[in-house]
Amino acid sequence: MHVLVTGAAGMIGRKLLARLASDGGLNGQPIEHLTLIDVMTPEAPAGFKDKVTAVAADLAAPSVADKLIAPRPEVVFHLAGVVSGEAETNFEKGYHVNLDGIRNLIEAIRVVGDGYRPKVIFTSSIAVYGAPFPHAIPDEFNLTPLTSYGTQKAIGELLLADYTRRGFLEGVGIRLPSICIRPGKPNLAASGFFSGIIREPLAGQEAVLPVSDTVLHTHASPRAAVGFLVHAASLTREQIGPRIGLAMPGVCCTIAEQIEALTRIAGPKVAARIRRQPDELVTRIVSGWPHRFDARRARELGFVAETGFDEIIRAHIDDELGGKIPA
Amino acid sequence: MHVLVTGAAGMIGRKLLARLASDGGLNGQPIEHLTLIDVMTPEAPAGFKDKVTAVAADLAAPSVADKLIAPRPEVVFHLAGVVSGEAETNFEKGYHVNLDGIRNLIEAIRVVGDGYRPKVIFTSSIAVYGAPFPHAIPDEFNLTPLTSYGTQKAIGELLLADYTRRGFLEGVGIRLPSICIRPGKPNLAASGFFSGIIREPLAGQEAVLPVSDTVLHTHASPRAAVGFLVHAASLTREQIGPRIGLAMPGVCCTIAEQIEALTRIAGPKVAARIRRQPDELVTRIVSGWPHRFDARRARELGFVAETGFDEIIRAHIDDELGGKIPA
Repeated sequence: MHVLVTGAAGMIGRKLLARLASDGGLNGQPIEHLTLIDVMTPEAPAGFKDKVTAVAADLAAPSVADKLIAPRPEVVFHLAGVVSGEAETNFEKGYHVNLDGIRNLIEAIRVVGDGYRPKVIFTSSIAVYGAPFPHAIPDEFNLTPLTSYGTQKAIGELLLADYTRRGFLEGVGIRLPSICIRPGKPNLAASGFFSGIIREPLAGQEAVLPVSDTVLHTHASPRAAVGFLVHAASLTREQIGPRIGLAMPGVCCTIAEQIEALTRIAGPKVAARIRRQPDELVTRIVSGWPHRFDARRARELGFVAETGFDEIIRAHIDDELGGKIPA
Repeated sequence: MHVLVTGAAGMIGRKLLARLASDGGLNGQPIEHLTLIDVMTPEAPAGFKDKVTAVAADLAAPSVADKLIAPRPEVVFHLAGVVSGEAETNFEKGYHVNLDGIRNLIEAIRVVGDGYRPKVIFTSSIAVYGAPFPHAIPDEFNLTPLTSYGTQKAIGELLLADYTRRGFLEGVGIRLPSICIRPGKPNLAASGFFSGIIREPLAGQEAVLPVSDTVLHTHASPRAAVGFLVHAASLTREQIGPRIGLAMPGVCCTIAEQIEALTRIAGPKVAARIRRQPDELVTRIVSGWPHRFDARRARELGFVAETGFDEIIRAHIDDELGGKIPA
């Protein structure tokens, strides 16, 4: 099997590659070749070194996608994109990367013709939803994004649904909840503090909490996110049906519950490193985000997330801190 | 006031121009200049001859939109598009005209900058909705189009909402129901028979009915459609709010009720010119279309359609047949 991963140098991309290397394949088949693309050259994962083509290029530039698709990968993980904050501050870049990128990719697939019909797993986002919201967002909730990022993701889903319907590919849009706990440094996403208030205290550093601790939000670990993508690749077109956008399950909890879980696992001294410093702008942005999802279709299709925030913290400690809480 | 009309040579475009000429202006202001564009040179309406710039060009081609927008029209009616049947049979043309067209247009507006913020009235369609449907489609129903045309219209609405939110323009998407009775020759739309079974018999010709006469559908006259567009231009951004796509009111009735209305108005001899010739493909396409809409928001905003199918037939006789039924 030949697998293409766009955005392969990003956090989810790298973790997906590590998972594929660890599994030794995808859908029970060995991976003969991996093509990786990102704006900087993606690193080949251990175990795939001699089977990897790694490309640094702009997927939205002419002919880049055609070259990636020419060897006909059977599965495409389309993760490339700029994050919500950047898509809002850099309007042109957001549309270029997040809209022209997916359009170039699926057009390159379409023009191959000849019965070629790869699976395309697209990382969409809960940013496709816009307030006002019901208590829990049902699977068939209207997409009324209130950010450019959410607009671009919603358009990506519409395109993927039409290209799937026409038989050019088999698409699925995975609406990721907030990924928590993100390893490494904060990125430009306004949701960054959800990870920061756990990651930094565990690393012995202070973290700023810019919103009230009554804020309710839905999270899934990076490990769960990778699990969603791998599971999506195993589903048939018949299982997914015409509505290819799927809200993923996750752990819905308040900031207070996040902090309680941190206290349980790492003690009050660690949790005391969270400094409350209310930020009006961040509070306003977060108040426009959805809190809770039914995610019934995804659960019925076998997508699995963590069952509590303790489990999300433990996944971080296992995957990023070698299983130990630093002293 | 300077008004730009794209798709100005089409049926709705020509009727909109006639209405503007008859009103002598828009929103109570005189029209100083009209810019018209279509793939063939649009005809200047009576009363505007010396105030018209008429262009034959492809709106989706580079720089065409920039030239149209350079003189900064205050109101843009974006009607240009290929119809549902053609967007389905000619995939590339559909995306080129229906998606690249609106994107070029609103990008040309955005890059002007400098506080320029025109009203953009976009003819969307009920094709943005995809089955399965509830008894009546509420305003907040999820957009899950099942045609490329509907996908392109839904994407156009998403783009227009984001450009509106960002303050580049003031957009509104008018989801037109089936326009009935279309004058002239049948077009490539699969819905053409809804007009044909009235128009042809009134003109002394036979018409084919390809579906069962229990089929339920929502209609508005060309006159009502033009009324929607003119009314939309009078609404403020505050009145419309962030959800800029609006399902329009219309007359919901069965084919049998259409035929009864025709019989009432023109007699059984005229109605007998309808020949039943079931067509499986058309029946299947039509079964995937929505039947009935709440259109509550549109009604509350003052959009008005006909109240019964008799009125729709009379509008046709008045506007197209000089008020008389041919013998």
